[in-house]
Amino acid sequence: VGESASDLGEFALIERLLSRVRPFVGDGSTFGPGDDAASLPVEGDSVLVTTDLLIEGIHFDLEISSFEDVGWKALAVNVSDIAAMGGEPSYALVGLGAPPEIAVADLERLYAGFGACARAFHVALAGGDSVRADRVTIAVTLLGNTGDASPVRRNGAAVGDVVCVTGAVGGAAAGLALLRGAKEGDAGAVALLERFPALATSHRRPVPRVREGRGAATTGATAMIDVSDGLGQDLDHIRAASDAGASIATSSVPISEGVEAVAEWRGVDPIRLAVGGGDDYELLITVKPGDLDALIAAVAPTPLTPIGEIIRGDRTTLVDGSDQIDLAGWGWDSFLEEE
Amino acid sequence: VGESASDLGEFALIERLLSRVRPFVGDGSTFGPGDDAASLPVEGDSVLVTTDLLIEGIHFDLEISSFEDVGWKALAVNVSDIAAMGGEPSYALVGLGAPPEIAVADLERLYAGFGACARAFHVALAGGDSVRADRVTIAVTLLGNTGDASPVRRNGAAVGDVVCVTGAVGGAAAGLALLRGAKEGDAGAVALLERFPALATSHRRPVPRVREGRGAATTGATAMIDVSDGLGQDLDHIRAASDAGASIATSSVPISEGVEAVAEWRGVDPIRLAVGGGDDYELLITVKPGDLDALIAAVAPTPLTPIGEIIRGDRTTLVDGSDQIDLAGWGWDSFLEEE
Repeated sequence: VGESASDLGEFALIERLLSRVRPFVGDGSTFGPGDDAASLPVEGDSVLVTTDLLIEGIHFDLEISSFEDVGWKALAVNVSDIAAMGGEPSYALVGLGAPPEIAVADLERLYAGFGACARAFHVALAGGDSVRADRVTIAVTLLGNTGDASPVRRNGAAVGDVVCVTGAVGGAAAGLALLRGAKEGDAGAVALLERFPALATSHRRPVPRVREGRGAATTGATAMIDVSDGLGQDLDHIRAASDAGASIATSSVPISEGVEAVAEWRGVDPIRLAVGGGDDYELLITVKPGDLDALIAAVAPTPLTPIGEIIRGDRTTLVDGSDQIDLAGWGWDSFLEEE
Repeated sequence: VGESASDLGEFALIERLLSRVRPFVGDGSTFGPGDDAASLPVEGDSVLVTTDLLIEGIHFDLEISSFEDVGWKALAVNVSDIAAMGGEPSYALVGLGAPPEIAVADLERLYAGFGACARAFHVALAGGDSVRADRVTIAVTLLGNTGDASPVRRNGAAVGDVVCVTGAVGGAAAGLALLRGAKEGDAGAVALLERFPALATSHRRPVPRVREGRGAATTGATAMIDVSDGLGQDLDHIRAASDAGASIATSSVPISEGVEAVAEWRGVDPIRLAVGGGDDYELLITVKPGDLDALIAAVAPTPLTPIGEIIRGDRTTLVDGSDQIDLAGWGWDSFLEEE
């Protein structure tokens, strides 16, 4: 058995973990760990800030994701929030709660995953807090900025705007369903995971769309949100903030490869995974029809697919053949139980 | 029985709780809740940021502190971190974890306490996250700035500097000891709580020293830290960061009223509570001897007491009569069990 967090003590532990994340904010006019607060340089006259709280057993399952995966994703979901404003991430703070008996090696793996994501998106670690907890608890705060562009909010969509989504959706939900199935020994799930390994990666290591969000912010995006609660519910957030209605068509939604096979295995409609699934971290963007081509060019080579439009009204509907389905309830509400 | 968090659902819950904290960041170029990230105005070219993670049963006990107290303290400890840099707090983000069955009224009380502290220190709520958790879990991130002054770090103390502390110490630790005693029905504790009610308040509702920290930053403070881990351990942080030694005298340490009586009840030396106790949120400041009078004037009417000096060496010692006690271990390490 290796060293535990309580063997090391808080201050030695923090030093050990920080060494897993390079670069972190250092000396000079900018400084981070080792003072009561970090002092960080800011470009322009405003700063973007977002925070997420992730708890073991609720937001992640260590039998399904490795400590590295969890570290990556804890930062990635915050990077995605900055991306959805059209911003670029800059500095992160991490509040870590962990049981005293946890192996330091596991926490080092967590920070290694965090560090991999930080390097991929040019984020520097600027400080944090480490405390005792029953379950691994991760509170990430991320700063960012939009440079010369204005942040893209949720409330700017207007009637007539086209609703588009980057990439494809449903992969993360399908991946999670397979990983849970495989954990319980389901042979069908195991076979599908082998056939579509990208689905597991979609759940474990989402790649936020920073470049695409930056492009959208300077190329006509009227509203933007990342797909975290589920495409249906996230579109409903844009619609409600913009005081309008929204309509998308089942036939237009780009669905990740393998989602149909997973839906068949689970006996559900693939659109349920794609529109209700969440955790995809694609960007849902509204744009005036005249700006659509420029937006597609700005986001390329990542695909950007028109899936519907902003309409009059106060509902978000899915046009599925001759059916009109209300999407407000199609998504993940963190205070309700998981399915 | 009242409404529970899961009855309301995440989004309605957030709206309800936000209404308990006024002002919060609203529309215009500054915006907070309701987007993926908050966009906040920044004065100058840098920003102070700090974060703390607080977990029920570890950092607070709902049989000892009310939900209002917990909300106040969750923000106050972060305000204290900004104060210890010489800064003024500005915007807060709150990540809240709570069991789905928790009463909404209790969460409203938590946010009311948070709001009271926010108003007292001119902090606006700028966003956050609400998730399901086994225990009430609060992750606060606070921004601030030092205006024209430079932030005061821990590493600026030099040999010959005077070590000073604002106010008095030991009250929070004594208050917690009494509140725990009273919870277990100890008649001595109940009597002492009645005699010294300010001790309970020191634990439940610490008042961060923002004005004093601002004054110190512009009046010669060479290093500064807030007393959260315990005066001994916090002084050791300054000493280590400044690559020097430190020495304080028992006879000089200003001890809160009632701490001696509590120490007698508990059968411990009062200096143990005062120097090892922590959670006081006073400021520990080093200053050149020639700047001491100006610093005392800047901090007035809050008392500022010289308690020792920065010396050569690599230890933090307490001179107690003819004894020299090493203070490095006198304090709270969050990965070790409570006493």
